[in-house]
Amino acid sequence: MKIYKWFEFDASHRLNIDLLSKDENKEVFGKCNNTPSHGHTYKLKVVVEGRPNDYGMIINYNDISKVVKPLIEILDHNFLNDLELFNSIPCTTTELMIQVLWDYLEPKLPGLYKLELKETDKTGCTYTGEMK
Amino acid sequence: MKIYKWFEFDASHRLNIDLLSKDENKEVFGKCNNTPSHGHTYKLKVVVEGRPNDYGMIINYNDISKVVKPLIEILDHNFLNDLELFNSIPCTTTELMIQVLWDYLEPKLPGLYKLELKETDKTGCTYTGEMK
Amino acid sequence: MKIYKWFEFDASHRLNIDLLSKDENKEVFGKCNNTPSHGHTYKLKVVVEGRPNDYGMIINYNDISKVVKPLIEILDHNFLNDLELFNSIPCTTTELMIQVLWDYLEPKLPGLYKLELKETDKTGCTYTGEMK
Amino acid sequence: MKIYKWFEFDASHRLNIDLLSKDENKEVFGKCNNTPSHGHTYKLKVVVEGRPNDYGMIINYNDISKVVKPLIEILDHNFLNDLELFNSIPCTTTELMIQVLWDYLEPKLPGLYKLELKETDKTGCTYTGEMK
Amino acid sequence: MKIYKWFEFDASHRLNIDLLSKDENKEVFGKCNNTPSHGHTYKLKVVVEGRPNDYGMIINYNDISKVVKPLIEILDHNFLNDLELFNSIPCTTTELMIQVLWDYLEPKLPGLYKLELKETDKTGCTYTGEMK
Amino acid sequence: MKIYKWFEFDASHRLNIDLLSKDENKEVFGKCNNTPSHGHTYKLKVVVEGRPNDYGMIINYNDISKVVKPLIEILDHNFLNDLELFNSIPCTTTELMIQVLWDYLEPKLPGLYKLELKETDKTGCTYTGEMK
Repeated sequence: MKIYKWFEFDASHRLNIDLLSKDENKEVFGKCNNTPSHGHTYKLKVVVEGRPNDYGMIINYNDISKVVKPLIEILDHNFLNDLELFNSIPCTTTELMIQVLWDYLEPKLPGLYKLELKETDKTGCTYTGEMK
Repeated sequence: MKIYKWFEFDASHRLNIDLLSKDENKEVFGKCNNTPSHGHTYKLKVVVEGRPNDYGMIINYNDISKVVKPLIEILDHNFLNDLELFNSIPCTTTELMIQVLWDYLEPKLPGLYKLELKETDKTGCTYTGEMK
Repeated sequence: MKIYKWFEFDASHRLNIDLLSKDENKEVFGKCNNTPSHGHTYKLKVVVEGRPNDYGMIINYNDISKVVKPLIEILDHNFLNDLELFNSIPCTTTELMIQVLWDYLEPKLPGLYKLELKETDKTGCTYTGEMK
Repeated sequence: MKIYKWFEFDASHRLNIDLLSKDENKEVFGKCNNTPSHGHTYKLKVVVEGRPNDYGMIINYNDISKVVKPLIEILDHNFLNDLELFNSIPCTTTELMIQVLWDYLEPKLPGLYKLELKETDKTGCTYTGEMK
Repeated sequence: MKIYKWFEFDASHRLNIDLLSKDENKEVFGKCNNTPSHGHTYKLKVVVEGRPNDYGMIINYNDISKVVKPLIEILDHNFLNDLELFNSIPCTTTELMIQVLWDYLEPKLPGLYKLELKETDKTGCTYTGEMK
Repeated sequence: MKIYKWFEFDASHRLNIDLLSKDENKEVFGKCNNTPSHGHTYKLKVVVEGRPNDYGMIINYNDISKVVKPLIEILDHNFLNDLELFNSIPCTTTELMIQVLWDYLEPKLPGLYKLELKETDKTGCTYTGEMK
């Protein structure tokens, strides 16, 4: 059984890889490469799997928040490219970001089953830790 | 292949377990333990799996409604804690409620594959009968 | 010019007027009269009118929150019929509730222009203080 | 890992199978059999599975659009029953349509993992190519 | 004070004016002129103005439904161009349709203040009877 | 009578006024003052008022798009503070931005009645040209 909770953060970013030339970056990332940045209202769904405990809860919704809110604090109203959190990834695509978010949350949230990260209302990414 | 239909009901409930003390209940359930109740606009997604029949349908969307509407009638505009339907569970968390809804629907809806029960726009629970 | 912010609260209530008989209440309010209660995920839109100040803001969105959050605290996860806030109204219809919310917010929020109170995704009420 | 993008098209259709009698069609399809047609704002979710490439992307969101937009052009603002695209199916239920959409997209979109086709905000269908 | 309720219908239509030539129709209406039709999931918001009565209601939400549901029955799962209801208008644009809906509802719904008719999630029309 | 169409753009910005000190900016704008920027998925509603013409339209929805799309091109995937478009305003609050958008659109869109600019799903601003 799974439960989930949605979170939200407003952030800016720019898709650009240092090892590529200016022209290559423009060709690969298009308008997402515009200087200095653009932004999104990101939405993050955190899904936890488990069996209900004696109180009928896999995990209290508030306890999900206690773990995720500090992460949202790091992300919200910031320029993602500058965050230490994303030092390990060459650019802040949803696919790379979601792995970092997973690595941050997974040790703190037993039973973490899936993350969904939406850049816009129409586009997003899901991850279940399978790249590890 | 799967098809689904969403339903909605407006209900009140209170999270409280008789075997716990007043203080324990408050600590475990927080404001969800407030007396006498609070409420939600619940949303229920019913997912049916199967192969399309000769008429190109796994099941007619209306036939899903025929099975689910009587259940919605039981839930809608009521205080969930008082319902006979939930006699078997110690409290009305989404995790316990969804199992009861599954047990009610599963014999009536061949191919029932998954239920999703949303308490609010941001929180919810999914179940595929795996606890049986 | 106007700005607005949406808030949310999960509450229970029951439509019942003490001066009416049991049968009259049932006839007037239908399933909203069910005992002891049902509930909704209410949404409240607070609209403020004004001219941008030197900082380009009619009012800081956070300052709207500072005024409205204490009201949401009173309403959220509670049984509306029991709240002292609603002592002055015979029942908690959206039309009567919204006037009480207006009277609470109006002195604290200069420029308050309109409230919108949604009981469900499909039904709601708007008020601009015109009943005063 | 999976990424997805939503698309939209406004189309009309009528559920009717030539091999059935007029009465049988009416009984099976109800008001969806009304002559000459009714319509929906359809929404299509295209989910692609894969590993991020050197640019951090399973596939560029724009490249999903390049493949899907021509399909949307075929569907949008048209009467689905008349489309050559659907010649192979006896009627345009979501369950049959989604298989045709899969067969169209699958050779053009490596890693296509799932389609979701919504007829309305409350009803829809998902498919992962399992009927092939 | 105003209250409102949203309704929904799935219908097909085609924008075409008999007095125009085939080429003129195509130029004016573009893909909305495609033969034989396309369709939408329409949404209709009915807004009623008034003062709360002795029961705290401008009008019971159910009484709005009693008046609007028969209209929805006429529209839902039908081809709008063929409906007798729209005989008086040369084509079924939202702007002309909304006037017909107003004329139908206004005598039956005292206090009718505004209609909003959405063709899609992004486009719509509002009317307060000002063309009469 | 009015018709409207929603548009969307993903942009970054930072609230900061040159004439204020670093500390004053932080105090006035809070986390919206974070360096170098944050971002939003903005939504813009364009409302046009008029009487239906001989073709039953106040204005063709596509003609609204023809006027608004070039503006969206300027805004989308950019850092709003750097745009020449906003040279005349000290900072990019929704209240100041919406006036600039109005001044851009109003001469090009006869009958422009109202703009609504949403920064997030919960916050936004409306303007009808009343500050001119």
